[in-house]
Amino acid sequence: VRSFTNSLAAPLSPEDMQVQSSPDASPTKWHLAHTTWFFEEFVLARFDPSHRWRDARWRFLFNSYYDAVGPRHARAARGQLSRPSLADVMAWRARVDEQMISAMPALDEAMAAIVLLGTHHEQQHQELLLTDVQQAFAANPIEPCYATGPDEPSAAEAAPLRWLDYEESLTRFGDEADGFAFDNERPAHRVLVGPFRLASRPVTNSEFASFVADGGYERAELWLADGWAAAKASEWRGPLYWGNAGEDAATVFTLHGRRVRDPSAPVSHVSFYEADAYARWFGARLPTEYEWELAAMGSSLDGNFVESGRLAPAPGAGHAPCEQLFGDVWEWTASPYAAYPKFRTLDGALGEYNGKFMNGQMVLRGGSCFSPRDHLRATYRNFFPPGARWQVAGIRLASDE
Amino acid sequence: VRSFTNSLAAPLSPEDMQVQSSPDASPTKWHLAHTTWFFEEFVLARFDPSHRWRDARWRFLFNSYYDAVGPRHARAARGQLSRPSLADVMAWRARVDEQMISAMPALDEAMAAIVLLGTHHEQQHQELLLTDVQQAFAANPIEPCYATGPDEPSAAEAAPLRWLDYEESLTRFGDEADGFAFDNERPAHRVLVGPFRLASRPVTNSEFASFVADGGYERAELWLADGWAAAKASEWRGPLYWGNAGEDAATVFTLHGRRVRDPSAPVSHVSFYEADAYARWFGARLPTEYEWELAAMGSSLDGNFVESGRLAPAPGAGHAPCEQLFGDVWEWTASPYAAYPKFRTLDGALGEYNGKFMNGQMVLRGGSCFSPRDHLRATYRNFFPPGARWQVAGIRLASDE
Amino acid sequence: VRSFTNSLAAPLSPEDMQVQSSPDASPTKWHLAHTTWFFEEFVLARFDPSHRWRDARWRFLFNSYYDAVGPRHARAARGQLSRPSLADVMAWRARVDEQMISAMPALDEAMAAIVLLGTHHEQQHQELLLTDVQQAFAANPIEPCYATGPDEPSAAEAAPLRWLDYEESLTRFGDEADGFAFDNERPAHRVLVGPFRLASRPVTNSEFASFVADGGYERAELWLADGWAAAKASEWRGPLYWGNAGEDAATVFTLHGRRVRDPSAPVSHVSFYEADAYARWFGARLPTEYEWELAAMGSSLDGNFVESGRLAPAPGAGHAPCEQLFGDVWEWTASPYAAYPKFRTLDGALGEYNGKFMNGQMVLRGGSCFSPRDHLRATYRNFFPPGARWQVAGIRLASDE
Amino acid sequence: VRSFTNSLAAPLSPEDMQVQSSPDASPTKWHLAHTTWFFEEFVLARFDPSHRWRDARWRFLFNSYYDAVGPRHARAARGQLSRPSLADVMAWRARVDEQMISAMPALDEAMAAIVLLGTHHEQQHQELLLTDVQQAFAANPIEPCYATGPDEPSAAEAAPLRWLDYEESLTRFGDEADGFAFDNERPAHRVLVGPFRLASRPVTNSEFASFVADGGYERAELWLADGWAAAKASEWRGPLYWGNAGEDAATVFTLHGRRVRDPSAPVSHVSFYEADAYARWFGARLPTEYEWELAAMGSSLDGNFVESGRLAPAPGAGHAPCEQLFGDVWEWTASPYAAYPKFRTLDGALGEYNGKFMNGQMVLRGGSCFSPRDHLRATYRNFFPPGARWQVAGIRLASDE
Repeated sequence: VRSFTNSLAAPLSPEDMQVQSSPDASPTKWHLAHTTWFFEEFVLARFDPSHRWRDARWRFLFNSYYDAVGPRHARAARGQLSRPSLADVMAWRARVDEQMISAMPALDEAMAAIVLLGTHHEQQHQELLLTDVQQAFAANPIEPCYATGPDEPSAAEAAPLRWLDYEESLTRFGDEADGFAFDNERPAHRVLVGPFRLASRPVTNSEFASFVADGGYERAELWLADGWAAAKASEWRGPLYWGNAGEDAATVFTLHGRRVRDPSAPVSHVSFYEADAYARWFGARLPTEYEWELAAMGSSLDGNFVESGRLAPAPGAGHAPCEQLFGDVWEWTASPYAAYPKFRTLDGALGEYNGKFMNGQMVLRGGSCFSPRDHLRATYRNFFPPGARWQVAGIRLASDE
Repeated sequence: VRSFTNSLAAPLSPEDMQVQSSPDASPTKWHLAHTTWFFEEFVLARFDPSHRWRDARWRFLFNSYYDAVGPRHARAARGQLSRPSLADVMAWRARVDEQMISAMPALDEAMAAIVLLGTHHEQQHQELLLTDVQQAFAANPIEPCYATGPDEPSAAEAAPLRWLDYEESLTRFGDEADGFAFDNERPAHRVLVGPFRLASRPVTNSEFASFVADGGYERAELWLADGWAAAKASEWRGPLYWGNAGEDAATVFTLHGRRVRDPSAPVSHVSFYEADAYARWFGARLPTEYEWELAAMGSSLDGNFVESGRLAPAPGAGHAPCEQLFGDVWEWTASPYAAYPKFRTLDGALGEYNGKFMNGQMVLRGGSCFSPRDHLRATYRNFFPPGARWQVAGIRLASDE
Repeated sequence: VRSFTNSLAAPLSPEDMQVQSSPDASPTKWHLAHTTWFFEEFVLARFDPSHRWRDARWRFLFNSYYDAVGPRHARAARGQLSRPSLADVMAWRARVDEQMISAMPALDEAMAAIVLLGTHHEQQHQELLLTDVQQAFAANPIEPCYATGPDEPSAAEAAPLRWLDYEESLTRFGDEADGFAFDNERPAHRVLVGPFRLASRPVTNSEFASFVADGGYERAELWLADGWAAAKASEWRGPLYWGNAGEDAATVFTLHGRRVRDPSAPVSHVSFYEADAYARWFGARLPTEYEWELAAMGSSLDGNFVESGRLAPAPGAGHAPCEQLFGDVWEWTASPYAAYPKFRTLDGALGEYNGKFMNGQMVLRGGSCFSPRDHLRATYRNFFPPGARWQVAGIRLASDE
Repeated sequence: VRSFTNSLAAPLSPEDMQVQSSPDASPTKWHLAHTTWFFEEFVLARFDPSHRWRDARWRFLFNSYYDAVGPRHARAARGQLSRPSLADVMAWRARVDEQMISAMPALDEAMAAIVLLGTHHEQQHQELLLTDVQQAFAANPIEPCYATGPDEPSAAEAAPLRWLDYEESLTRFGDEADGFAFDNERPAHRVLVGPFRLASRPVTNSEFASFVADGGYERAELWLADGWAAAKASEWRGPLYWGNAGEDAATVFTLHGRRVRDPSAPVSHVSFYEADAYARWFGARLPTEYEWELAAMGSSLDGNFVESGRLAPAPGAGHAPCEQLFGDVWEWTASPYAAYPKFRTLDGALGEYNGKFMNGQMVLRGGSCFSPRDHLRATYRNFFPPGARWQVAGIRLASDE
């Protein structure tokens, strides 16, 4: 996991890694440092009372949001920190990796669990590193490429949308397996769900273009009130990285640069508000997170993940009855992010990992083409504010009929 | 209903009714006009194609948020409208009442349903009228009184907090009765709930003061991240209308003026964030809206409502096993405001009544001392953003153990 | 002076007098109260140590900006104060007038000077009362009238623009007369001015319309950088109260209601930025305040003032060589508002009257159709921020050639 | 000039040069590129119609504020541009330098004047480069050093403050020499000045500390209204880079790192508001720009400039009657930045160089320890908004008595 993070940063210059593309995003260098801080703060410094920090001031700089750990640098000012240099951060990464390798054999079970959490934490930042670079590069009129990639859209046509029927059921949801899961996926609990229908694949660029062409962004009746206000205030006219009217109209900006949109690929970089408006326009709705999980329970973890090097959503193969649940695009659900019944946060500072954000955000499921495959599972709950557009988030429809 | 609105405005001067106390609140005069607009817009003008508007420009001024009806005056600028005058608005109210009385015998069932909706809509504005006046008077250093009231707190001591146990059950929630209910209470549907415990009464001023004294507003670990940010940004140090440190420390500002707080009365004018933080401090949690409804199903609709003229929460009598579910204070629940399964909005413009706000808000249940009694029921879903403090909102605890 | 203020308020309802039209403006009721506070605070309470305040809390409410007097109510929240009522304020005015009449015979010279200052202060608020009502009424889609007035523009054509030549001179400027003048007009001092040319009359609506038609609001090269930013940010397309494109295009909103613009009348309600851009477009410039004063020294104090009841700028008669220096519209000068050499503020709290605002504002000269005639003189220095548009401010050109 | 810019950037890493420390400041890399753009845009591309731009998109990125040249990248987003890389920018600098060397022999007089302007323009950016780096490093909790420097304050004690007397005079100000001067220094013109007194040296750190200790930042009566509002809103408690209370209290952050303040050195990094408040506290005032220029006319251009490598203000030697007029700290004057009589902007796009900023700013005179010596002269007019603190600006007192 640690070396994969380094490989994601490899195509970038020190200057690229310095840029903070928005107050919600972080510089690549900060991601590299923060994920390292996690291990020094929560493992090395706690395991060995005589541990000497690489630089104690870095605790302040690279703490993200853990109040229990202490004060921290202002989030929106992360891009100001030209020091420590990238070279210093990379050396720190190597040093902490070595110290971890030395320490791990002697860690007790609780500490080993934190190490495991640290690797999953780092995988989350791998995805954020890419979404944040995409945002930074998109803000540059020169529109740099992060990596080479296919120039032409696939010739494939998307499989026709089909509806999969689910009976009413009282089902056990959430994680109760032996492997790793975040605290917000627990405890497992039973919920009465359905009946409902779920779309066999995500909404495509071509389908979303019909919504745009039909005045989707100009019809208040399709939108939640907050969504309508956001769309008007920010002058949304299409998904975040779609080209403007004119010669760029049919393009999308990706980590492979600006290129012609693939009409058959899943639409991405839409907010929850846009996903919700699309569903209303279509005469459908978004699935709840339970409906989504019910469908995913039986599906194999196949899809287009970051390991493929194809850093843009791709059309589905059209083989499976329910396609692309995993990978390609995160799927916005109709479920506000809230605690599961009898939810318990982790003890100590790590209790701040998930619980304190259970407010004002929506759940997304399934993972994207920027997600590491082994980071995902059917019970995984991602969450973002309803107006967020810089994540690789798309739409899967559900219906009651 | 219509004349009760007038009686609520009676103690106020034309100037009092002109003031808009915050962008979220409205002047009394606007409430008087908007509730009248509702009947002219949705009943009179639709029932009679030859209907002549009292003043067609008022459609623009007093439309609240119905995009389907047309454009409207900016919400935050309602306090700028010195014209039409209060006298004009009161004459309009009388005229519309007369026209409604003439029209009602001939209305069809659908139109009659809108009339009924209009009365419940007006009751909602009766409560808002009072909360908005309280906010305006509180912002005035002179702190005017809206009405005379008891000067001294009750001598009563609050009943000890007890926990009521509920077994796990698969229960049908939401409205399916013949009477009136809002669309957001429907359709009725089954949910698996519990087991859980519910507090026998709301949290009191005295109990909340212990939270404050224990540093509740200074301990980040008790708060949701957004709540902590709001509390720090707005320098919250106690519920909205509690007096500042010094000679006012033990007071609260009410529609009866500033007076010594009743330690046994339910705490009110707290945000969801404060309710949530209090619950965490106590070692409990807030109930979900289903848990609350389960408890309320069997309770009689007793309590302290606006009709009593006692415009501040009062201590419970201590008789019933589960007290003050209705009246006194709205109770924040842990449930984000979302659509019930198979929810359908009303047709036409009135479809904007509730559905488009199902985002970013929390459900409150039970009604307050500002609510008309016959406006309430066990299935009633009120909703406000989690940071809202100017409503008469308090706290009831729940627990898993 | 005191009764004239009352007469200006007479056409307004209590609700009209409650409205604050912008954070920079004040409600009529506040003007009525603040001008009364001035006499109670600076004369009555200081003259008589045993003086009893009408209500000591009103010192906080109606202090405008005197830090030396103590804390005060937030300026932007003046419109929130429904109490004291208008009736209370009018009774206070009468009471203070009576107390002043009793006290005046015994006042010493210093105190008498403050009384005189108080009347000139009140005249300033008479003008502000009208500009603030105009702003409030303009913000109301109903566009109420403050007073009846001529419905049709004058048939008169404006006199042709002529240039008056001034030789270089070393002239003494500022006030050194025996009568009243503000501290910022003193001390008199010599300045080397000229040679220059001054326009014989202000710029007319018709002339300014040519600037608009020539793309004046779309050509960055005509504007100061801050002015261009303000024009774009606020979407200025013409003077503040000019009608929008469409059927209102040839209208202007005045205290007599919306009516067809008089092409021969001076343009008004433009900011310094617009005045400066117009001058640049014309190939001229704005006069300095010294140039303006040089021209005004020899002019009689004739013009269109508030006493006429004609509350909109009117065309000049075309008789005098240099017309309308006084009345009709304040004239923006090229002079930043700064202290005259050896300027001394008044002693005590009244030292805050003018001096602390000598920063970031521009000087205007001459008075407007909202100004009382006997409030004005050739040395009078008015000042407003360069972006202010709600004052009755227009343009007179100057040139070096 | 061009190679000196490079030498100023030499101590910085690519990441240091990427950071934008505030919306008003620019990254070092941007300064390096913009000064190069100046020569390609205004000389090379105009001189040779067949000139090929290094990259035509860079015209958009590195145009600062010239509307006549075309649209441009948002100022506040300059720190987002990780591409072009520093290496690309340095190669561009070399290429443009070569092209300029080839072109210069054939340039006509007008073009040669633009080349000269370009070098003075670049010197302005040399100073900004340093002020912006200082701001960026100060915002980093690690507080990096830009360059090594003296660790200890000088032992020297400041010379006692003396007052130099000036008679009233009618003097010719502004530039009329043959050498280079900016358009805003012209035309030369006569002004009547005086009598007045001018302080023999700038205010020292020690003297300013007395103002702070005397409650200077807590006494509204010492401040302009806008200054007081700025001081309270931004919680100013001392000059920008002075250490906070506690162990840092006697320190200042400089490009040589944080170190003990030199009590005898001129105070720096104060706003006009603070300079004005200090002067009022002292019982003096700030000089006008004409008073300052009168004193500087006869002074030799000696002082502490950027070439010395001593990048912090230093105590004066105490030899000359009027010391440190040049170098060490820019001196705020009481003069708003305005056009001189008969001021004419340059033709074309370069007319935007100075004229459009003649609004809302104050004139500073004399240059600082970050200024190149040969960039300065007695007629030089620098200007910044009255609240700006990140420039090396200090205080010299004047008086009427």
